[in-house]
Amino acid sequence: MRVLGIDPGLTRCGVGIVDGVPGRLGKLVGYTVVRSDPDQDIAERLLHLDTSLGELVAAYKPDSVAVERVFAQHNARTVMGTAQASGVAILAGARAGLPVQTYTPSEVKAAVTGSGTADKAQVTAMVTRLLKLDAPPKPADAADAIAIAICHIWRGGTRARIEAAARRSLR
Amino acid sequence: MRVLGIDPGLTRCGVGIVDGVPGRLGKLVGYTVVRSDPDQDIAERLLHLDTSLGELVAAYKPDSVAVERVFAQHNARTVMGTAQASGVAILAGARAGLPVQTYTPSEVKAAVTGSGTADKAQVTAMVTRLLKLDAPPKPADAADAIAIAICHIWRGGTRARIEAAARRSLR
Repeated sequence: MRVLGIDPGLTRCGVGIVDGVPGRLGKLVGYTVVRSDPDQDIAERLLHLDTSLGELVAAYKPDSVAVERVFAQHNARTVMGTAQASGVAILAGARAGLPVQTYTPSEVKAAVTGSGTADKAQVTAMVTRLLKLDAPPKPADAADAIAIAICHIWRGGTRARIEAAARRSLR
Repeated sequence: MRVLGIDPGLTRCGVGIVDGVPGRLGKLVGYTVVRSDPDQDIAERLLHLDTSLGELVAAYKPDSVAVERVFAQHNARTVMGTAQASGVAILAGARAGLPVQTYTPSEVKAAVTGSGTADKAQVTAMVTRLLKLDAPPKPADAADAIAIAICHIWRGGTRARIEAAARRSLR
């Protein structure tokens, strides 16, 4: 199973691609950060993010997409842009016909560190260890995206499968 | 000038298409509300919105798109979904190569009623009067979208043109 994890953001959007199956992580396939200039028009920024994520999905051909959920209590000045970016991120997976799953920040932290309140350094350290990397992923923004992909693999897409089955049974 | 106005929302997204030039409103070309089921998966809902807005842009061929800005102080339970929907709405215009402009709720209210604190009924009444409609647009969600399009026409896309010129001069 190949998962493309996305840590949504407008100025910096982390993307990490990880192969693996539940119980056995495979390898880090790639990661990047999609950036856009805060001085640019919002429409240009969202279009750039949409195009970039579309290209990454086409290039890496993941089986599913995992996106971190955005909450209103975050930094109020940037939270609207982050939420807009998360909409574009979820859409990038949906438009490619892929299952898309969202996870809360604490679900992601708990999945990779065992604690839902772990800090950024701990997440980066565990991502580095779990994927047997020689050095922590740089830039650090990408580590969160990789952690989201790991979280989805650990959970084996269970929730997505249950929900898909529930939807089928309702038809 | 034909403007497609969008009042972003996940459960109900208002869309209104208005023809006109600054100082002289033309006619209401059409309006609709794109709906999605709150019980559905977020990815399916955003994909449905994206597809529907893409079809409306292709069908009505607007010269520009105007979207109401979303603020964090709104209903916290639904604001994240509204912000995600606004990202998809802005993207629908940008992907079609159209200029996209955002307006605050008070800019829209002031443009159609003269007061930035007007209520929904007042906005609907003025939309009905300004466009010489026989009856208020139904559903009411569409009235806000039509008001956003009117706001953009009143302002003659001035801001968008100034910003485009500024961007060109920076190149």
